[in-house]
Amino acid sequence: IKLWGGRFQESVTDAVERFTESISYDKDLYKHDIRGSRAHASMLAKQGLMSIGDRDSILAGLDEIERRIRNGEFVWRADREDVHMNIEAALTDLIGEPAKKLHTARSRNDQVATDFRLWCRDAIDSIVARIKDFQVAMVDLAVKNAGIIVPGYTHLQRAQPVLLQHVLLAFVEQLDRDAGRLLDCRARLNFCPLGACALAGTGLPIERFMTSSALEFSSPLRNSIDAVSDRDFAIEFLSANSIMAIHLSRLGEEWVLWSSEEFGFITPNDAVSTGSSIMPQKKNPDPMELVRGKSARVIGDVVTLLTLCKGLPLAYNRDLQEDKEPVFDSVKTVLGMLEVSAEFARNISFNQDRIKKALPAGHLDATTLADYLVHKGIPFRTSHDIVGKSVAMCLGKNCQLKDLSLNELRSLSPIFDEDVYEFLGVENAVNKFSSYGSTGSECVASQLQYWIEKLGLISQ
Amino acid sequence: IKLWGGRFQESVTDAVERFTESISYDKDLYKHDIRGSRAHASMLAKQGLMSIGDRDSILAGLDEIERRIRNGEFVWRADREDVHMNIEAALTDLIGEPAKKLHTARSRNDQVATDFRLWCRDAIDSIVARIKDFQVAMVDLAVKNAGIIVPGYTHLQRAQPVLLQHVLLAFVEQLDRDAGRLLDCRARLNFCPLGACALAGTGLPIERFMTSSALEFSSPLRNSIDAVSDRDFAIEFLSANSIMAIHLSRLGEEWVLWSSEEFGFITPNDAVSTGSSIMPQKKNPDPMELVRGKSARVIGDVVTLLTLCKGLPLAYNRDLQEDKEPVFDSVKTVLGMLEVSAEFARNISFNQDRIKKALPAGHLDATTLADYLVHKGIPFRTSHDIVGKSVAMCLGKNCQLKDLSLNELRSLSPIFDEDVYEFLGVENAVNKFSSYGSTGSECVASQLQYWIEKLGLISQ
Amino acid sequence: IKLWGGRFQESVTDAVERFTESISYDKDLYKHDIRGSRAHASMLAKQGLMSIGDRDSILAGLDEIERRIRNGEFVWRADREDVHMNIEAALTDLIGEPAKKLHTARSRNDQVATDFRLWCRDAIDSIVARIKDFQVAMVDLAVKNAGIIVPGYTHLQRAQPVLLQHVLLAFVEQLDRDAGRLLDCRARLNFCPLGACALAGTGLPIERFMTSSALEFSSPLRNSIDAVSDRDFAIEFLSANSIMAIHLSRLGEEWVLWSSEEFGFITPNDAVSTGSSIMPQKKNPDPMELVRGKSARVIGDVVTLLTLCKGLPLAYNRDLQEDKEPVFDSVKTVLGMLEVSAEFARNISFNQDRIKKALPAGHLDATTLADYLVHKGIPFRTSHDIVGKSVAMCLGKNCQLKDLSLNELRSLSPIFDEDVYEFLGVENAVNKFSSYGSTGSECVASQLQYWIEKLGLISQ
Amino acid sequence: IKLWGGRFQESVTDAVERFTESISYDKDLYKHDIRGSRAHASMLAKQGLMSIGDRDSILAGLDEIERRIRNGEFVWRADREDVHMNIEAALTDLIGEPAKKLHTARSRNDQVATDFRLWCRDAIDSIVARIKDFQVAMVDLAVKNAGIIVPGYTHLQRAQPVLLQHVLLAFVEQLDRDAGRLLDCRARLNFCPLGACALAGTGLPIERFMTSSALEFSSPLRNSIDAVSDRDFAIEFLSANSIMAIHLSRLGEEWVLWSSEEFGFITPNDAVSTGSSIMPQKKNPDPMELVRGKSARVIGDVVTLLTLCKGLPLAYNRDLQEDKEPVFDSVKTVLGMLEVSAEFARNISFNQDRIKKALPAGHLDATTLADYLVHKGIPFRTSHDIVGKSVAMCLGKNCQLKDLSLNELRSLSPIFDEDVYEFLGVENAVNKFSSYGSTGSECVASQLQYWIEKLGLISQ
Repeated sequence: IKLWGGRFQESVTDAVERFTESISYDKDLYKHDIRGSRAHASMLAKQGLMSIGDRDSILAGLDEIERRIRNGEFVWRADREDVHMNIEAALTDLIGEPAKKLHTARSRNDQVATDFRLWCRDAIDSIVARIKDFQVAMVDLAVKNAGIIVPGYTHLQRAQPVLLQHVLLAFVEQLDRDAGRLLDCRARLNFCPLGACALAGTGLPIERFMTSSALEFSSPLRNSIDAVSDRDFAIEFLSANSIMAIHLSRLGEEWVLWSSEEFGFITPNDAVSTGSSIMPQKKNPDPMELVRGKSARVIGDVVTLLTLCKGLPLAYNRDLQEDKEPVFDSVKTVLGMLEVSAEFARNISFNQDRIKKALPAGHLDATTLADYLVHKGIPFRTSHDIVGKSVAMCLGKNCQLKDLSLNELRSLSPIFDEDVYEFLGVENAVNKFSSYGSTGSECVASQLQYWIEKLGLISQ
Repeated sequence: IKLWGGRFQESVTDAVERFTESISYDKDLYKHDIRGSRAHASMLAKQGLMSIGDRDSILAGLDEIERRIRNGEFVWRADREDVHMNIEAALTDLIGEPAKKLHTARSRNDQVATDFRLWCRDAIDSIVARIKDFQVAMVDLAVKNAGIIVPGYTHLQRAQPVLLQHVLLAFVEQLDRDAGRLLDCRARLNFCPLGACALAGTGLPIERFMTSSALEFSSPLRNSIDAVSDRDFAIEFLSANSIMAIHLSRLGEEWVLWSSEEFGFITPNDAVSTGSSIMPQKKNPDPMELVRGKSARVIGDVVTLLTLCKGLPLAYNRDLQEDKEPVFDSVKTVLGMLEVSAEFARNISFNQDRIKKALPAGHLDATTLADYLVHKGIPFRTSHDIVGKSVAMCLGKNCQLKDLSLNELRSLSPIFDEDVYEFLGVENAVNKFSSYGSTGSECVASQLQYWIEKLGLISQ
Repeated sequence: IKLWGGRFQESVTDAVERFTESISYDKDLYKHDIRGSRAHASMLAKQGLMSIGDRDSILAGLDEIERRIRNGEFVWRADREDVHMNIEAALTDLIGEPAKKLHTARSRNDQVATDFRLWCRDAIDSIVARIKDFQVAMVDLAVKNAGIIVPGYTHLQRAQPVLLQHVLLAFVEQLDRDAGRLLDCRARLNFCPLGACALAGTGLPIERFMTSSALEFSSPLRNSIDAVSDRDFAIEFLSANSIMAIHLSRLGEEWVLWSSEEFGFITPNDAVSTGSSIMPQKKNPDPMELVRGKSARVIGDVVTLLTLCKGLPLAYNRDLQEDKEPVFDSVKTVLGMLEVSAEFARNISFNQDRIKKALPAGHLDATTLADYLVHKGIPFRTSHDIVGKSVAMCLGKNCQLKDLSLNELRSLSPIFDEDVYEFLGVENAVNKFSSYGSTGSECVASQLQYWIEKLGLISQ
Repeated sequence: IKLWGGRFQESVTDAVERFTESISYDKDLYKHDIRGSRAHASMLAKQGLMSIGDRDSILAGLDEIERRIRNGEFVWRADREDVHMNIEAALTDLIGEPAKKLHTARSRNDQVATDFRLWCRDAIDSIVARIKDFQVAMVDLAVKNAGIIVPGYTHLQRAQPVLLQHVLLAFVEQLDRDAGRLLDCRARLNFCPLGACALAGTGLPIERFMTSSALEFSSPLRNSIDAVSDRDFAIEFLSANSIMAIHLSRLGEEWVLWSSEEFGFITPNDAVSTGSSIMPQKKNPDPMELVRGKSARVIGDVVTLLTLCKGLPLAYNRDLQEDKEPVFDSVKTVLGMLEVSAEFARNISFNQDRIKKALPAGHLDATTLADYLVHKGIPFRTSHDIVGKSVAMCLGKNCQLKDLSLNELRSLSPIFDEDVYEFLGVENAVNKFSSYGSTGSECVASQLQYWIEKLGLISQ
């Protein structure tokens, strides 16, 4: 018999029960639901709305229920709709009358909002920890691969030579902002809805600051209608996840490219590769393909939440029950993406010879040559034009810029002098970079040091 | 040991296995996978690529495996990655050597594309059947509630009186187009990828028309690269589902409004209502709120698929493994939405008295009055203006249009005559409609008859 | 002739020019582009990469160009591709040779990233200002409508009575978090990409901290590859806008409902209503319908940006040119939504009599009655059940709870006493609320005071 | 003065006017609006609702207005809200009284639905024509590049050798299904809403079949409420565009990869390339990057439309005004994507030598070798294993499969014989393919011939 029985004479149909149940997924909230109930019962007792004895029965009963759930001994019942009613009804089965007082000055509306905020808070903490793991893996990879120069790309065309470390640290930066977004979200959601009840608060003498504080919230939410009706915190959370997923999808693309025969920069270990059921020679970087692909569902999840909330009137509407699955899916997915990306980083090796051999292609030193001319006083636009013609000359002769003779160069501009050869060639070019944040060795070394310290790694 | 063992010396890590497995959900393809394997084995035998004995062993083995799965006796193993390898490996366990020939001239790339198209085809058939159920429920509801006039709304403002039947049939029309979209999708996806192998076809003497025909496809896909790399059929399917979900979300909104105290048009039975854990008087139309809300995830699912496929190079990429869960989720969701909407339609009653009492509000006959003036030869824009002033007069006097005296009306235009009162009042107004497709009684009766016949219901 | 002329011998086709141009929309960046160029030129001069004379020519030229653009005298040319090249080329036309030095140690990659961050920073400031305007309008509306009780809804069913002020302040709370999100985004994006050049930095002796500081950024971005390739700041911005748009869409829904004949809570002034071309009596709350509807495009915009960035390799790719239009559209839309919502708030009146007359319906005092029983020591679940039966009794008798006699009540529970009538009726019910954040008069008054002070309004 | 003047005493505020106007974009419907008005006026005259003289004045007036618009002489006024009222008001200015009769038995609700369907129908025809152009360009490219073998990829790892023609035709197939989707959408939307009026039809003696037929619709829509409230046709249209955009984004990715230094398969002409403002050597395939990138906004557009319609009650709501901009944007974008993709196809050359030189890498003949063993009677799984070991042997020796001696091969399986060398090497491998739809020369030739005929190209 349903909890709202009083004025109802008939049960819902099977189809409706199946369609409206949430227990199949919201049971994942059980720890937070029990934690919330503990805080609520203690407050009720303190405020005289429940006896100490009843409170103790409830707390003991909740302990037992939590134990059973953890051990897989608890039977979840779909006819009890959701995690809240399953636990409350089981508590009644277990301890009888006192359990009926637990829902005093509480509605499922404020209860679920509380549970869900607690859950999201924990999830954010887990993700942030895993971001750090990923950053550590990337910094380790950078430390292990000092000195490697790779082509830097724009438009997937070779652009300028960069240090591999510089590329790896770009992702460390991006994920760091992702962590920042999550922590901002955490701070903004960390307010307590408990006591907002159905939507209007209550006339019973509850003390919301007590429960808020017991649950480690910053303070109670100020407006009870707002407290039960808004899910902006969940959307913000999934937005932050989506941006992170996009960052990781770009890493996925990068490493899939780098693993290809054509790029050939990295070889993944067998531990992070898979093969083909038909083509015996294949060794595929599947984990990073899936990192790229799974970003799609993280985006789908936030779209679901946004669309869900659009145009709903105040306050709680049953539509909001649909808020949890996208959040659970997004969290599970990004945790996996982070874990596997870190694992991939720990299981690849760089093909230094092959990278080095391929470096001369693409005239990566052209911009350095233009800078050379600027050093000599030529306006940049003019330098750009001269170097453009130098490259055209190379294309005609099928050679590198450093292979042009001084006479050839001088035929394009009399400014060229012997010292030009100190600017040509990939190694020379990369050594010339010096601006803050650039790929120059010292700049990158100092960036690396920054991260080693920030991440608490022992300096190497 | 993995199926691609030859050149691999190490297993993937646990995290990678967890992240890349698909068996937790793609086992839902088992029936279609087995069906495909049956057709493939029979073709291989016919083409001399397998003996009749081997084929018979395989077919018997597949029967046994299907039986076990159906009875829940089959153990799905994550280390066997996916449904295809689970079944093939179980077949090898069961019948030994012959099983090793089943994957001849087949790759998981064409195999999964085949399974997935078969699955989608069946899913479409189920959805189309349920659309019909829903349409029948709506037509039944219309038949049972003949003669009721309700306000028609634009901008959620009362606009013109309409027959309730007319409103209900609008949804029947919309869902009918949804079925059309699904059937177009079905026809377009019903081509067979089997035999495309990894991406390039094969040199073994297979006969693709034979498997295509055995699986009731229209014909084999013409281009093997296209066959394994595209998922446009799945996106089209989910797009059609999304449009249908939007239609149902609008029905959800409509019925949530109609169930409110303020509208008060319908009372849902207890069988499709739920109550509140805190407010004893509440009776909520939750199923229709969830119909509205669940449209969001159907949209999220198609966004996932679109984003997933964006920018992938040819041919198969592991990202595509992520194609199934959104499709499964979308299908499950729309099946539920349709079922519950039909059930709701069968469990509501219209509050005729209350509807009737509320009809005079909103000047629903104003446009009919303007048409009256047009009948009398007044240009429409001028009529519109005269009626606008009549309404202003009513607002001032707090009365209905039919309460204005002829003198009052004539003060706005001398054209008004006694016969004007045949056009005023909601019943008069609704009776005046006569254009094809309008809310006039005869028009609606003929629409209703059209649907009764089209849906194969006995005319009433 | 294009700026990259050196190695090119042919112009792009017309179709390609049309397809790849961005000047039709990125000219909106002109102020920020010029501001960036001023800072860059000053830095180059300070660092000896340009003479003081050249710098002064450039600064004067930029002033003149800005003047011309502002006055509509500037001719934007599609063959000059984008805002950067239009301005640089015009500068060359205007001042000749010195202009060719402006692009020293700068690429369009870092230039556009700088412009775009500056633009977003300004846009956020505008939106935050308009949020405050909206909040002020809502608080004013609340102040003007003290004492009005309206039904509070869950599931769009009447739930409990609430003060109108309480409802209005819920939206003030929500928008306040939106402002917080925008300001967090502002702080996170306020780092300077200038000097990252194409992707690797430069070997020329620039001083990035100087330009960063001149442009009021917190500091230069640390990693040049990250600086030119990431657009996470734009996605975060549009995510925040989307959440706000969802909040406003809910307000739109609320006010559309309240304007309906059925709810009848508010009457919008003509100044914010529109009529019908065919139905003379109509007066529609179009602005709020559009507020609700336009939330859709704000969501579409963020989906565009997320999808755009998915799976792109490092560093800059031309795809990123598509980042601006969704941002411009989102900003323009939310500015309009905020403005019109505030204007609507200033142009509605509440129909107090009608609201009051309708209040008895829906048993809004049922939960208060349950609390009464809790006060008397009945466990909540039991109270809930008793009140459920009381409501059923009312339904049978078609009366309100307060109309039940004490005997009737006592037939359900002997606990009921004369004092029960102090808890029944909407006014009594609303007066009983007392918890923090509840709809009790004192709680709401203190919330209102909080906002009056926070928004800097004179206390009333 | 607004058209709904009668009961209004005040104009909307400037902010509301700015926010609610649609004339800035819906003027693009002018041709279809005028066409609809012509049909409507003729019908009204035929039905005796307007004199022949009035009809002729109206038709002449509409001709003049269309002329003015086409010549840019027409002044669009924001205070006249939208395209419909601008044209009707201009007609009144021009011909006076008769113009006031044009809106008889018509509302903007059915008028805009009619215009929009006509517009979409034309847009579909344009897109389908451009799909054909694109297909022709691809087939031409295939014809010009007969005989080239390229690596086929799965997981972006080299898989099997394929004919370049086979790859190109895969895209021709995909776009053909896109055209099919658009034509299905066209057929489904080609029904006439005109005469549905505001939502309920009319009592005036109109003849909807006459206008429907004059406007080349299949027939009038059956239900007037459905006719004015649904936008499923627009969502279906944008869904089809999205799927096509995804196909083109994959082509974009493919060609960006192929243009890279690392792949080096194609060289785009200067006519479809752009350079860099800072790096003089760069030549970027920008048009295809933008084809990839612009797919994002096409997806954003359909998300906007889906979200827009979610949860709206019947019938017309002002939200629906927002339906046009996403459709216009999607259409403009896909037209550009198709045009530029075709142009790119006409402006690339394949680097045959380089492709050929790179072919040996990646063991593309491994699967053919496995098929060889199957031919010899080895079960496929066993063959796969033997070839896996052969590849491992090659990796150890850093050689190709064809470089293994017969003795070496026999050490893995005694089945290997001299004839194995007819299966090894890329040319041999590609020649072995023979299944329907495979990359075998004859199969591809027949596919090519199919397309040449279907597209009406002269057979070559």
